[in-house]
Amino acid sequence: QGTRDHPPAQAALRDRLLGAVVSCFKRHGAAAIDTPVLELRETLMGKYGEDAKLIYELQDQGGELLALRYDLTVPFARYLAMNKVTNMKRYHVAKVYRRDNPATTRGRYREFYQCDFDIAGQFDPMIPDAECLKIVHEILSDLQLGDFVIKVNDRRILNGVFAVCGVPESKFIPACSTVDKLDKMPWKEVRSEMVGEKGLSPEAADRIGEYVQLHGGLDLIERLLQDPQLSQNKLAKEGLGDMKLLFEYLTLFGITGKISFDLSLARGLDYYTGVIFEAVLLQQENEHVEEPVSVGSVAGGGRYDGLVGMFDPKGRKVPCVGVSIGIERIFSILEQRLKASGEKLRTTETQVLVATPQKHLLAARLKLISELWDAGIKAEMLYKKDPKLLKQLQYCEDTGIPLAAIVGEQELADGVVKLRDVATRQEV
Amino acid sequence: QGTRDHPPAQAALRDRLLGAVVSCFKRHGAAAIDTPVLELRETLMGKYGEDAKLIYELQDQGGELLALRYDLTVPFARYLAMNKVTNMKRYHVAKVYRRDNPATTRGRYREFYQCDFDIAGQFDPMIPDAECLKIVHEILSDLQLGDFVIKVNDRRILNGVFAVCGVPESKFIPACSTVDKLDKMPWKEVRSEMVGEKGLSPEAADRIGEYVQLHGGLDLIERLLQDPQLSQNKLAKEGLGDMKLLFEYLTLFGITGKISFDLSLARGLDYYTGVIFEAVLLQQENEHVEEPVSVGSVAGGGRYDGLVGMFDPKGRKVPCVGVSIGIERIFSILEQRLKASGEKLRTTETQVLVATPQKHLLAARLKLISELWDAGIKAEMLYKKDPKLLKQLQYCEDTGIPLAAIVGEQELADGVVKLRDVATRQEV
Repeated sequence: QGTRDHPPAQAALRDRLLGAVVSCFKRHGAAAIDTPVLELRETLMGKYGEDAKLIYELQDQGGELLALRYDLTVPFARYLAMNKVTNMKRYHVAKVYRRDNPATTRGRYREFYQCDFDIAGQFDPMIPDAECLKIVHEILSDLQLGDFVIKVNDRRILNGVFAVCGVPESKFIPACSTVDKLDKMPWKEVRSEMVGEKGLSPEAADRIGEYVQLHGGLDLIERLLQDPQLSQNKLAKEGLGDMKLLFEYLTLFGITGKISFDLSLARGLDYYTGVIFEAVLLQQENEHVEEPVSVGSVAGGGRYDGLVGMFDPKGRKVPCVGVSIGIERIFSILEQRLKASGEKLRTTETQVLVATPQKHLLAARLKLISELWDAGIKAEMLYKKDPKLLKQLQYCEDTGIPLAAIVGEQELADGVVKLRDVATRQEV
Repeated sequence: QGTRDHPPAQAALRDRLLGAVVSCFKRHGAAAIDTPVLELRETLMGKYGEDAKLIYELQDQGGELLALRYDLTVPFARYLAMNKVTNMKRYHVAKVYRRDNPATTRGRYREFYQCDFDIAGQFDPMIPDAECLKIVHEILSDLQLGDFVIKVNDRRILNGVFAVCGVPESKFIPACSTVDKLDKMPWKEVRSEMVGEKGLSPEAADRIGEYVQLHGGLDLIERLLQDPQLSQNKLAKEGLGDMKLLFEYLTLFGITGKISFDLSLARGLDYYTGVIFEAVLLQQENEHVEEPVSVGSVAGGGRYDGLVGMFDPKGRKVPCVGVSIGIERIFSILEQRLKASGEKLRTTETQVLVATPQKHLLAARLKLISELWDAGIKAEMLYKKDPKLLKQLQYCEDTGIPLAAIVGEQELADGVVKLRDVATRQEV
C-alpha cells in the first residue's frame, strides 16, 4: 500500500525528470554521495518531532536495530559527523520511506524519491542560503511547471514573534508546528489548536495571528525591523537582518519576483534553526484540470545548524543549509500533462532493427546485429527464427525505432545491407 | 554492519560503472522499470530455497507484512504477473538486501546494487539466451577487467545427470545446491556432503563426480549427446540439443573463445529451469595484487520459465531468461585499480570558478555566476564575502576546475571578464 511499480513509460519520464534535477545540482558544483537505505534506529530517533511515528522499523532478526531512512537530511548529517567532514556541497537522489496515509492521486506515497542538495560548512551569512533558493527557481523554471512562488521565513523570526507575543520558550516548537498548518486550514482553526491543544493563552494566539498573516518583500522586512516589539528581540533582529541580506543576494540573482517573505511559513521538522523556505505551484485560472486541488509544496528546505552536532561525540557543529525537491508531486503533474497531450514517450533508445525479408536468414541477422552492438549502435532484432518482414517493420513503428537494417538473399549475395527509414520508407 | 556510505570519489566511480552497464543494456533495446524496495513477505517466500533465511523482514507496525527485496528477479516476475505482461525486455539497476555474513574486502555487502537485464516472452529457443551471454561478454570486455570465462550449463542437463546416476527426483534440488559448491571446495568435500548431508548413495555420488568434472566446448556437447546413458534421458537430451544451438549462435556472435560448457555449474537458486551461466574473472599470473584471492563470479543468470506462473492466479507461465551483473565485485576491483594508479577522479563537473581579486566585489560575483548558471554553465564560487584570489585559485586546483572567471575593479570598469586557464595560467 502506498508504493508503486514504475512501468517503462513512467520510468522513462521519471529518468528525464531526475536528469533535469541532477543536472541543475551538478551545475552548482555538487558532488554525489550515497548512504544506505537502512539506518540504525537510534540515528533517526529524536530528529523528526511528531512525525517519528511514521518511521518504518525492521524486525529484530538479531544484530542491530534498524529502520528505513525517513529523509536524506538526517543520513547526510550522520555522514558528515561520522567522517568528520566540515565542508561539503553534495546532492543525493534516492528513495525515502514514511508510514504515512498515502494519497497517491496527489503524489503522496510511502516510498518516494527525494532529490536533495545541501551545503555544509562555516561560511559568510546567506550566500549558500541564497544559492539554495536560486536552485529551486532554476529547477521549477526549467521544468515549466507554470507559475510558482517560493515562500521564505526564518525560524529565528518565528521564535522572536512567539517570544514577543508572550509564548514561553518551552512552547516554541509546538506553536511552530501549529503555525505550519496555516497552508491547510484557516487561521480560526489554527488559533483554536494553539489555545486548546497547545495551551497558549488566547491573547498570545491573537497577537501571533497578527504577525503570521503578514507576507511581502523587502518593504515588510524593513517594517518589521522597525516594529517596536520585534526590534527589541535579539533572535528576531538577527533573523530579519539576515532576511534583508538574503533579499539583497536574491535581487542580484534576479529572482525576487518569485520570492515571498511569509511569516506563516513554519515547516514541520524540528531541526531547522534559521532560514526556511517552501515552493508552491500556483494554479492557473484558465487551466483545464479534472480536479482543481492545489498540488501544494514542490520543494522545501532550510538551515539546520545543530543537526550534525547531534551525531558528533563532542557535539561539534557543522552549519548546513539545503533544499529538497518534491519530485513525486512534480512527476504527477508531468504525467497528467503527458497524458493530456497524447504524446507517447519512447521507452527505449534503439536506433535500428536488424530484419530479414526471407526465411533461413537468422544467422545473417545474428552476425549483423553483433557487429552493430560491437560498434556501439543500439540495435534490436525479433527473437524469432523466421519473422515476417511486415511484423518486423510493425515492431519499429510500435516502439519508435527509426531505422531497419535489412539483409535478404540479394543483399547477402551483393555483400550489402539495405537501410530503411521506417517513417519515410526510403531505402538505401 | 555490511552496509556503507559512498563518499563522492566512490559515488563518482560507481556512477561511471553503472553508466557503462546501463548503456550496454540500452544498446540491447531494454526499457527501464522500477519496483519498490518493499515487497509483501509472501511474495518472497518459497523462491530462494535455503537462502530465504537471509531475507530482511520489516517489523509488524500494523498493515501488511513486508520484507526488503532479496533480488530484482522475483519482483520482476511479480510485476509481469500482476500486470499481465507476457513480453518485455527490461533492465533494472537498484539495491537489494541480504542478511548474509558480509565480506566487505571482497565486495560482499548486505546492501548492494544489482544490475539486471531480462527478456520475458515466448520465443524461438536460445536466441534471447544467447543475447544475455553476449551482454555479459560486452560488459566485461568494455570494463577491461582482464581475462574472464563465462561458464554455461543447463539445469535440464544437470537433472538428467542426476537421473542417470540414480538420484531420486526428490533429491535433484539438494544435489544441485551441493554441486554448486564445487567452485569453493574440492570434489572430495562435495562428495561427502552429498553422501552425508543429502543422503545420496556413494555410487550415485561417484557417478555424478565423473560428469560434473567435465568442461569444454562443442566437442563435449557432441560427446555427451552420444553418451549411452545421457542420450537416453529426455531432459538431458533436450538440454544438450539446446546447448548445441546456443553454441551455434555464440559462434555467430564470435564469443565462444570465452565460453566454457561446464557441468559443475549449478547456481544456488531454486527457480532456474534451463540454461544457467556465470562469469568468472581469471587472475593474471603476472599481476601484482596485494591479496591473491579469486574475486569469483562477476555476473550470472539463467532461464526461469516457471517463476512468473507462481504469481499468476491461473498459473499462466511467461518464459524468462536474464542476467545480473555483480557490480559490487567489479566496483571493488576498479576501486583497487584506481588506488594503485594514483589517478584522482573528479567528483564534480564544475567548468568555471567565479573569482574576484579585490574586496567588496561579492555583488559582481553573484551577478556573474547567476548569468553563467542561467546559460547552463557549471559554475561555483567560494561562499566568502572577500576571499583571497590565491585561495580561489587553490580551490580550482584542489577540485579540478579548469577555468576561473575573474571580475576585478578593472574588469568591472572595462565591462569585461578575465578568463584564466588554471593549469597554464593563461588569461584572456
